[in-house]
Amino acid sequence: MILDKVNLPCDLKCLSIDEMNLLAGEIRELIIKKVNAIGGHMAPNLGIVETTIAMHYVFNSPVDKFIFDVSHQCYPHKILTGRKDGFTVPENYLKYTGYTAPEESLHDLFKIGHTSTSVSLAVGVAKARDLQNRKENVIALIGDGSLTGGEAMEGLNNAACLGSNIIIIVNDNDMSIAENHGGIYKNLKLLRDTNGTADCNFFKSIGFDYLYVDDGNNIEKMIKALEKVKDSTHPVVVHINTLKGKGLEVAENNKEAFHWILPGTLDKKDEKVVQNTEDYTSLTTNYMLKKAKEDSSFIVVNAATPGVFGFSKEFRTKMDKQYTDVGIAEEHAVAYTSALAKMGAKPIFAVMSSFIQRAYDQLSQDLCLNSSPVTMLVYWGGISNADATHLCVFDIPLISNIPNMVYLAPTCKEEYLSMLDWAVNQTRYPVAIRVPSCELISSGVNDNTDYSILNKYEIKEKGEEIAILGLGSFFGLAQTLKDEIKKTLSINATLINPKFITGIDSELLENLKSNHSLVITLEDGVLDGGFGEKISRFYSNSDMKVINYGAMKEFTDRVSLKELYQRYHLTKELIVSDIQKILQKVR
Amino acid sequence: MILDKVNLPCDLKCLSIDEMNLLAGEIRELIIKKVNAIGGHMAPNLGIVETTIAMHYVFNSPVDKFIFDVSHQCYPHKILTGRKDGFTVPENYLKYTGYTAPEESLHDLFKIGHTSTSVSLAVGVAKARDLQNRKENVIALIGDGSLTGGEAMEGLNNAACLGSNIIIIVNDNDMSIAENHGGIYKNLKLLRDTNGTADCNFFKSIGFDYLYVDDGNNIEKMIKALEKVKDSTHPVVVHINTLKGKGLEVAENNKEAFHWILPGTLDKKDEKVVQNTEDYTSLTTNYMLKKAKEDSSFIVVNAATPGVFGFSKEFRTKMDKQYTDVGIAEEHAVAYTSALAKMGAKPIFAVMSSFIQRAYDQLSQDLCLNSSPVTMLVYWGGISNADATHLCVFDIPLISNIPNMVYLAPTCKEEYLSMLDWAVNQTRYPVAIRVPSCELISSGVNDNTDYSILNKYEIKEKGEEIAILGLGSFFGLAQTLKDEIKKTLSINATLINPKFITGIDSELLENLKSNHSLVITLEDGVLDGGFGEKISRFYSNSDMKVINYGAMKEFTDRVSLKELYQRYHLTKELIVSDIQKILQKVR
Repeated sequence: MILDKVNLPCDLKCLSIDEMNLLAGEIRELIIKKVNAIGGHMAPNLGIVETTIAMHYVFNSPVDKFIFDVSHQCYPHKILTGRKDGFTVPENYLKYTGYTAPEESLHDLFKIGHTSTSVSLAVGVAKARDLQNRKENVIALIGDGSLTGGEAMEGLNNAACLGSNIIIIVNDNDMSIAENHGGIYKNLKLLRDTNGTADCNFFKSIGFDYLYVDDGNNIEKMIKALEKVKDSTHPVVVHINTLKGKGLEVAENNKEAFHWILPGTLDKKDEKVVQNTEDYTSLTTNYMLKKAKEDSSFIVVNAATPGVFGFSKEFRTKMDKQYTDVGIAEEHAVAYTSALAKMGAKPIFAVMSSFIQRAYDQLSQDLCLNSSPVTMLVYWGGISNADATHLCVFDIPLISNIPNMVYLAPTCKEEYLSMLDWAVNQTRYPVAIRVPSCELISSGVNDNTDYSILNKYEIKEKGEEIAILGLGSFFGLAQTLKDEIKKTLSINATLINPKFITGIDSELLENLKSNHSLVITLEDGVLDGGFGEKISRFYSNSDMKVINYGAMKEFTDRVSLKELYQRYHLTKELIVSDIQKILQKVR
Repeated sequence: MILDKVNLPCDLKCLSIDEMNLLAGEIRELIIKKVNAIGGHMAPNLGIVETTIAMHYVFNSPVDKFIFDVSHQCYPHKILTGRKDGFTVPENYLKYTGYTAPEESLHDLFKIGHTSTSVSLAVGVAKARDLQNRKENVIALIGDGSLTGGEAMEGLNNAACLGSNIIIIVNDNDMSIAENHGGIYKNLKLLRDTNGTADCNFFKSIGFDYLYVDDGNNIEKMIKALEKVKDSTHPVVVHINTLKGKGLEVAENNKEAFHWILPGTLDKKDEKVVQNTEDYTSLTTNYMLKKAKEDSSFIVVNAATPGVFGFSKEFRTKMDKQYTDVGIAEEHAVAYTSALAKMGAKPIFAVMSSFIQRAYDQLSQDLCLNSSPVTMLVYWGGISNADATHLCVFDIPLISNIPNMVYLAPTCKEEYLSMLDWAVNQTRYPVAIRVPSCELISSGVNDNTDYSILNKYEIKEKGEEIAILGLGSFFGLAQTLKDEIKKTLSINATLINPKFITGIDSELLENLKSNHSLVITLEDGVLDGGFGEKISRFYSNSDMKVINYGAMKEFTDRVSLKELYQRYHLTKELIVSDIQKILQKVR
């Protein structure tokens, strides 16, 4: 194995092109094996093997600085920078994260997981170098899909007038997670088709020197190109054409499906997975397809992550003009849907909790200030064992403190459908719905609630002394807590489904004072700025005691749910133990 | 007066070019007179008079839809759409807002005040039209300065592949508020220099049809151009060259100073205003200039609003390479400063409270997740009589609920300087400082606090029964409240300066329990998700009563401070009255 001789980037320098080609094959095999074993980003990493080798051959990391956009294509880089044990030894498969991580290696500068940030970061790295009078190269590697994100465009615009060395490698595999959307892709195609020679050149237009490499999977060509731009004294774009999924036929042919895969995907490649079980995703797509047929002004929007929402190719085809993928452009998505709604269309914007963070100002200004009746579906909201870059616990503070917004937290299928239908058909409010991240629960009873009467909580079971407010996907925990309280403390607690994250049911809360002394709030998200604090504020000048349960304000990184629930006291046993302490004081 | 005959856009249709030219002069005079009387956006409106007339002549608003970016250039549009009384009658000068406002007129589609949103909104308007099978024109008017904002670029990218009518008028006056910054401006210059004929064309590169007008202040030329693109069946950019400040010599020659002016500016144009009084702005720029000399890696960054921070031309010249204006690109600014700090430089990012909203995800991911020791100065934070689009009350919930962030609230000059110096010189935390929005207060005593000991509140005066936490610029209110409580209730209240917005001083708060029964929090911002709620949560399961004072969750629109303070009970008298009610219950 060539890889046996390569522990650090410097070990590459004495290899021949042939040896590096062999090395590429070895790296590719390791990636395929590991990703198939534990899941992860397959196709992006397979496509960038040769370029990564060439980068480390030509440049001198960590003196020269690499910044990978999204950084989900950093596996070859990790293998070449002292972390190959995380790929060669199955026991170590979880040792390193799937993203760049400064705590792992000097060769990683930033913790990165959201897209379109690399160029902006690289401009800062380069400017710091200039201020400190050094001369190293600064290289950002950004995929074509990430180019459309506002931050990337802002970064490119500023990189172009930096006036010193900055090298932007545009890794063009003609794919985002799904297919690309946006005007810039016409130009990338033109440039590919003309071998980079077309006069009308997006990158040149904003001031970059420009170099095209027709095969970014050819190490020799990549080395030649990078040697040309090395030590450049001005901003330059190296536009390379690579093959997403390169070297794994099934990935080359199914780029979207193999962008990120579940463990074992390759082992069952011949099975057709037919999903028969209903979940919140299928419930939603079925609703959308039905609604689209009924109403030609109904439209579904997402920002380049259709897979998260079950927006399969079949779904997209059926929705046709009533579906927009705006590309990686969450800010645009919010403004776009706001305008659609303002003009009488019926838009739903589907978005992951972690990515709605990219559009706070648009939620505030374009959407809520204009009271546009958009329906926004927020997926995956809740405490999880995710990477620090993809936590979904901040959406409640982010969304719910904006005026005019109605943020709803359904607890079961029937409630969700009822809220969804109300949201889509009403014309007064921007409405967000936190799609439950738990398994589908059905009450079996149709929900006929009139959600236009805002901030009306529902008492599910009347009791006394203790009231439990179980928000959204934590309503289940509230139910089991009620039982545990009954069992352990012989108290028949009141069980409440708040439904509305964005408002206080003053009347209901006021009434609780008559025969309750303690209110428990449970929310599946960070406490700071969240729902529970508002309940605490409501009761703050009364005798009612309150305890808020939820996540602490922290970036957790792949911590198991079990550990987090222990840490945050999110089990019925731990909560009952807390309650006992409080009640001893009260009594 | 021609204007006497023009009440609505349809009245333009029968005018000759000569009459429209006269009309332009009349409109210009009204704008100059009104803006000089009450203050407002002068130069942007003077530059767009002829284009606005041509737009209303050629198109058929409100059937055809106009969307003005930022909308601070909508005065001529307002005059032509039934609202000229707000300009001709001085008593009505405040009748209409300085931005587009749907509640005023059918000709205004959106409430807009932040930049770079118009194209995204226009895409939504156009798509809604397509879904509803109509054919009207959709026109966005966006300035060259606004083009760099991420949302604008995301919008352009999607507009270009809409596949139906959308007309983007790029109003290129070669200015942002100050001079432009960014690679795209090279291309705009090239296009101006070649009368739009250069092959390398940014707009064409992303797929737009393109038309250039060399004089956007020429009504006849503008009419011809707009008639050409009217009813276009595909996306088209009309790039027009206009003169910012046109027709007012002093504005033409001082475009930056006349972007927005104070009342009476024209009357005292010969006076040189020499500022001798110290304020938080001059304090900051003086600190920056000194620091820049001492440390070559110290750098100041802002996003296209230098005037807000006193970054005058003189200041910019002195700072030289240690100053970056990134253009309208707040997302980039945060990532850029994060990378600067990570690489050992000492960046300060200065930003208005209202505009930091544009970079939540970058604060979270690029900055806080990477714990980069950036210093961010947040200006103008607080309750004000501002337009709904420019409220500065949301920065505390926005910033302070992000992990790792240290958000500080100084109460006087000495504390501010001490915090600033600590923030710049430490290397562990992203630190934001809420620059007091009140007049400069000096304690006269140097502040030697070690701010690396986080979340340490300061007891300024020890008392009992009631404790007042006066955050930042509301510390003054806390002081007068203490006196009022003494006078009215004969209680010697404890006065606390929390200093840290982002954390709880558990020990201090715990100790208060021994001889206090009520805690008052005062914050100059929205309560929801803010500082006070965290204090309420802290005490929620104890006997301590808490009242949180601050703004309600609402978009206020030019409501006087006096009225808001009444509404929110932010006077010592109203608070004491509230306290009396609580104490009666407690006692």
